[in-house]
Amino acid sequence: MVTMRNYLAIDAGGTSTRAVFLTGSGQCLGYGVSGGGNPVSRGFDGAIEALLQASSGALGGTPQAISSVTIGMAGASLELATQPFRERFAGLGLSGNVMIESDLLATFYSGTCQDNGYALIAGTGAVAARISDSRLAAVADGTGWLLGDSGAGFWLGREVLRAVAAALDGRGKPTALLEPVLAELGISGGTQERTNGRIRAQQQLIAKIYALAPIELSRFAPMVFDAGDDAVARDITDRAAAALAGTLTAVLDGAVDGPLVFGGSVLTRGGSVADAVVSRLSGTRQQGASRQEGAQNLVVPILVADGMAGAAVLALKRAGVKVDEAVFERISASLAALRA
Amino acid sequence: MVTMRNYLAIDAGGTSTRAVFLTGSGQCLGYGVSGGGNPVSRGFDGAIEALLQASSGALGGTPQAISSVTIGMAGASLELATQPFRERFAGLGLSGNVMIESDLLATFYSGTCQDNGYALIAGTGAVAARISDSRLAAVADGTGWLLGDSGAGFWLGREVLRAVAAALDGRGKPTALLEPVLAELGISGGTQERTNGRIRAQQQLIAKIYALAPIELSRFAPMVFDAGDDAVARDITDRAAAALAGTLTAVLDGAVDGPLVFGGSVLTRGGSVADAVVSRLSGTRQQGASRQEGAQNLVVPILVADGMAGAAVLALKRAGVKVDEAVFERISASLAALRA
Repeated sequence: MVTMRNYLAIDAGGTSTRAVFLTGSGQCLGYGVSGGGNPVSRGFDGAIEALLQASSGALGGTPQAISSVTIGMAGASLELATQPFRERFAGLGLSGNVMIESDLLATFYSGTCQDNGYALIAGTGAVAARISDSRLAAVADGTGWLLGDSGAGFWLGREVLRAVAAALDGRGKPTALLEPVLAELGISGGTQERTNGRIRAQQQLIAKIYALAPIELSRFAPMVFDAGDDAVARDITDRAAAALAGTLTAVLDGAVDGPLVFGGSVLTRGGSVADAVVSRLSGTRQQGASRQEGAQNLVVPILVADGMAGAAVLALKRAGVKVDEAVFERISASLAALRA
Repeated sequence: MVTMRNYLAIDAGGTSTRAVFLTGSGQCLGYGVSGGGNPVSRGFDGAIEALLQASSGALGGTPQAISSVTIGMAGASLELATQPFRERFAGLGLSGNVMIESDLLATFYSGTCQDNGYALIAGTGAVAARISDSRLAAVADGTGWLLGDSGAGFWLGREVLRAVAAALDGRGKPTALLEPVLAELGISGGTQERTNGRIRAQQQLIAKIYALAPIELSRFAPMVFDAGDDAVARDITDRAAAALAGTLTAVLDGAVDGPLVFGGSVLTRGGSVADAVVSRLSGTRQQGASRQEGAQNLVVPILVADGMAGAAVLALKRAGVKVDEAVFERISASLAALRA
């Protein structure tokens, strides 16, 4: 006789949080969403409220018997003590443990049930991981907007703005990015006239941009994909793809074969950057075949929207449930139905 | 009969302020220093106190008959109303006007008494100007740490740190910059060991750097000049020189000939970047001779430490005094004697 256990899995992001309540066979029973659930950016109290709100939605608003809670979170949260979480989830019916897992693993397992492979995520930030025996064996970049995150949203937005600033005073080539950036910021005209030697539109650009928090520069990233056949925009996306391919290459290991999962809006929306990364990766493999010879599956990445399915996979795996293709398909299909 | 008039000239910087009291013939009579005197970064009250303190030092502590006050300040201050300054300087003996001039002009005139030419400054930020008939005809870059300032102190410091972060996780080449950066931040060891896939020294680097204000990254800039024969450091200084040469090229005009003045620590200390900029400029001129054909003096830049002598030159020029080579030499020599 098998005791049926149910699990709560949470994908806690910086701006939104998702939760799913599922059976040990991978059947998702309920789904809930809430705001940002990262303790580093929101503080513990704000984060736990978001986690409980999404979880309550997944449980249909009433406590249920929960065997364990598995939370996918950004790296810096991995060292958090789980007891304070456990105390709060007891009120929802938790009898077992709270486990905090890397959002990198959650993203990886949103695309596969295999325990070895690679993940590359490019949202606001950029990070790559090698997964070995269901653990993070190596992580590259993910070093934030000042130190790295090369090729991701903030980086792209900043490059768009730097290109526009340079085009205005003649340091850079003219670019189709100029008009949408000035329009977005409400700057009209003054692209030729100078005051005290300075192009007027550039002076306004400076005033508008330094009134923003730096991280807000990522909102200019999508413009680079809408610039059409513009040489400056193409140079930016080429450099982004090169940086992301370099980040992924840094975690490749000939001894680890397995699927490649892509996450984050820069890779999953549009697809031109994802294609360029794969194309550059193939080039790298030809040059350094011995290092990447095991990475046969890298040519066709699996694109995932977030880490929700992966958090559910992790919940079962960490509980000792074998997640085979059938269970993985059940998680994916029933989750998609709940979200629809 | 000629009435002898005396003038007060001030070079107001973000971190320090200098003032000199001089005669209409260019003889500097007194010199004073104080802290940051920029109203944008310090606020009006803090800035005016710094200006008055340096001025009082230049006047020997007692009010004197001052014909005019000329203040060299960063661009954004050029639109300030001068009346509040005039009221405060009346207490030091001012009978005439207060004139606010660009720090770019003050730097330019620290190196020459000619009214046409070019200035390139690379301190924490980077900016170039074309001077025509003693006014700013064109300005390039100077767009700040997010939008530009390419090749200057913040840019160099950030590139040093990005190179170290990339070297740690294998995205970038090994570099001699690693050791001094980790030592400066008090990070010892952990350059091979990983926690949750992340190189430990990189995790510490992330924690230490994001605890700083972004602008503090400029303190890592000098390391790039002390890295010896390091390919990564050389790549950074090469790109800095290319960016600065591009900034200067953007303001070149075949119709304007005249001296080239270099200011700011990146160009004046060490000299390797200054040499590389000049070398790249020569290359540009061969490719685009028609545009830069008038810029014959660009091959030997004049290096200046600050805008103090130039503020004194501007004080006399704006008062209608002809500043010839003899007057310019008198200003430079008597100022140097006061500073010694």
